[in-house]
Amino acid sequence: MTTEQTIKDMMLEMGKAAKAAAGTLANAPTKQKNKALTSAARLIRADKDNIITANAKDMEIATARRLAGAMLDRLALDNERIEAIAKSLEAIAELPDPVGGIMAQWDQPSGLNISRVRVPLGVIGIIYESRPNVTADAGALCLKSGNASILRGGSESALSNRAIHDCLVQGLEEAGLSPDCIQLIPTQDRSAVGEMLGLVGYVDIIVPRGGKSLIERVQNDSRVPVMAHLDGICHVYVDADANLEKAVAITLNAKMRRTGVCGAAETLLIDQAVLNSHLPTIMDALKFAGCELRGDKTVLALDSTILPATEEDWNTEYLDSILSIRIVDGIQGAIDHIATYSSQHTDSIITENSETAEKFLTLVDSAIVMHNTSTQFADGGEFGMGAEIGISTGKMHARGPVGLEQLTSYKYQVRSNGQTRA
Amino acid sequence: MTTEQTIKDMMLEMGKAAKAAAGTLANAPTKQKNKALTSAARLIRADKDNIITANAKDMEIATARRLAGAMLDRLALDNERIEAIAKSLEAIAELPDPVGGIMAQWDQPSGLNISRVRVPLGVIGIIYESRPNVTADAGALCLKSGNASILRGGSESALSNRAIHDCLVQGLEEAGLSPDCIQLIPTQDRSAVGEMLGLVGYVDIIVPRGGKSLIERVQNDSRVPVMAHLDGICHVYVDADANLEKAVAITLNAKMRRTGVCGAAETLLIDQAVLNSHLPTIMDALKFAGCELRGDKTVLALDSTILPATEEDWNTEYLDSILSIRIVDGIQGAIDHIATYSSQHTDSIITENSETAEKFLTLVDSAIVMHNTSTQFADGGEFGMGAEIGISTGKMHARGPVGLEQLTSYKYQVRSNGQTRA
Repeated sequence: MTTEQTIKDMMLEMGKAAKAAAGTLANAPTKQKNKALTSAARLIRADKDNIITANAKDMEIATARRLAGAMLDRLALDNERIEAIAKSLEAIAELPDPVGGIMAQWDQPSGLNISRVRVPLGVIGIIYESRPNVTADAGALCLKSGNASILRGGSESALSNRAIHDCLVQGLEEAGLSPDCIQLIPTQDRSAVGEMLGLVGYVDIIVPRGGKSLIERVQNDSRVPVMAHLDGICHVYVDADANLEKAVAITLNAKMRRTGVCGAAETLLIDQAVLNSHLPTIMDALKFAGCELRGDKTVLALDSTILPATEEDWNTEYLDSILSIRIVDGIQGAIDHIATYSSQHTDSIITENSETAEKFLTLVDSAIVMHNTSTQFADGGEFGMGAEIGISTGKMHARGPVGLEQLTSYKYQVRSNGQTRA
Repeated sequence: MTTEQTIKDMMLEMGKAAKAAAGTLANAPTKQKNKALTSAARLIRADKDNIITANAKDMEIATARRLAGAMLDRLALDNERIEAIAKSLEAIAELPDPVGGIMAQWDQPSGLNISRVRVPLGVIGIIYESRPNVTADAGALCLKSGNASILRGGSESALSNRAIHDCLVQGLEEAGLSPDCIQLIPTQDRSAVGEMLGLVGYVDIIVPRGGKSLIERVQNDSRVPVMAHLDGICHVYVDADANLEKAVAITLNAKMRRTGVCGAAETLLIDQAVLNSHLPTIMDALKFAGCELRGDKTVLALDSTILPATEEDWNTEYLDSILSIRIVDGIQGAIDHIATYSSQHTDSIITENSETAEKFLTLVDSAIVMHNTSTQFADGGEFGMGAEIGISTGKMHARGPVGLEQLTSYKYQVRSNGQTRA
């Protein structure tokens, strides 16, 4: 038997095991799911030294492979980060259980009483890179929402992921749940991902978390529906009626609070009416914070020290301390630019004119549209969902932050008293 | 240029035109959309003779091709059916507009006010067979929900569809909307369907309506998400605590009201405890109504005149006056049978025991689960949605009847007063 065939068989077995586990998990009591999560948190704390040893080996290999510093930082675990992983499991246990929740209920003239009730999606496949805490977070979010999960972490964090996964499995067992509720693909062979993307009938949805090339591959190859965002090209538009202080504070925060997150702004649009009154102050603040600026012709005329922004800039998610700036002709110019270049993730308008704001909120077709708000608030936690598995820019199923409720589907329960249809 | 290349180009052009139309349609006022629908209804009435002439030609070709009687009946249009098409357009105009509806709204401690607002999906591709009224219904439901549509009817109804589509386009123009809001693929070349299934980035969702082979092909080949149901293998389970009169009435209605609809029951499960008290009466009623019965060994022992049911029977959607009957060991036996054979469409329990009923409604994982209700109520109209484009058994996005709301997605509108994230 070839290795390829072995991996194909292994993935099919994992798919079948996940589906069987999901059948029971779908109706597991909240208490039992929470017990698995809090037990896992306890075990992770108790197993801290083992996890740190495993992580040290991952770090050693990654360093030898000359991984970038930012990657190494995301990979590293210490006491504090392990405590954060345990706390996150406990926080997910505290969140309300979405399963069984009644979304709507009504009576029909025919005598039917109809309820729309939340049910889990089934089996969720998660493909992620470097950060070992995703093993715990993703497995826990799926478990709490009644879904079985199949996790596939990056090769660079293989040993750390396995050590954390061991604690999750022990937690499941302590709670009397099947260990197949959270499975970790035990090989780093790349064909395992391809096999998982083809497990139609066993895996209900794939959530990829990582760089653009990973997401692109998954979106192109998957036969299972995918929930993700490819890019986070977010815009801040400073309108003619913008308050200068807010414009400065929001642009600075949207770009520089953290530059590597998907909700970070990449392009500043500004109405030509406030070019002279607002832009210099905003640019000074950004430069003072260490941000590289690129601009269109008009911006260059204002400040000849910065680089010109090209067509490629408008299409780029820098994920770095770089911002492209474009002058637009009023709100329609901003809306047109966003329609062309936005990745439909998060876009924000700064204005004191509520009519203009409503126009922007209505006409911009992004998952999250904002008024006088920093784009860095694009986050499940900040939306009050407690935790998120990611942010979706697709229009099917969930859009925006994907928390526990977004990991569910629903069914209709119909009650009547012997009703037949005429 | 080959025909294949021409069709590829044509479909791409239709996709681009639909996407452009969808951009404007997404924010078209309700009044304007309704005007297009009521104008189309008026034009269909006025154009009745032309539509009937076109339909007569379709019927002539179909008869020469020896289409089955049931297919011919679905294809045929007369004054009454044309009036029904016009009325259906007016009824869709009367339905509330889902677009812009606020699904939820809340404040966060950070000062953010968050609204979840309904938006259209974008562009919907609909592939359907024989019934020409689907041209009007599907186009109208998409229009009312703010979506552009690309329609692909069956070759047997090509001329009828074109005549109806002409009226829809005139209606759009009268209302000042782009004719690209509802496009009909002008060729019957099969490669056009394949091209549409690959229009990622232009078509947001495909809704196939028709026979199993059509749905199967679409689900296998589409790179665009598909909303559909492949089978409607619906079950009625007569529990030990079933009221005999209700059991007879519901089984008869679920099977025989209309045998060709997806919500028709295909299998009767009955608890062995009421085998002798309930089954003979139910079987008599079904036989009297002209239903062919097939049964397992125990059923055959009760009535030797009927055929044995095979493994294939439990897996078959007859869409005909045939019912398979199986004796099960209590509710767990029924749940196990349904978990194995149900297409997760609609399943119903007959019982006076509310605890048993709740167990069934919770544990059966179908889009619609019912208590003391005929499965033939599985219909958007009967659910109070006004109209439906179909029924979905998938768990992503919409499940159960797909009406106007289910043809929408949402976005988050966030309002604050200069908030930046810490």
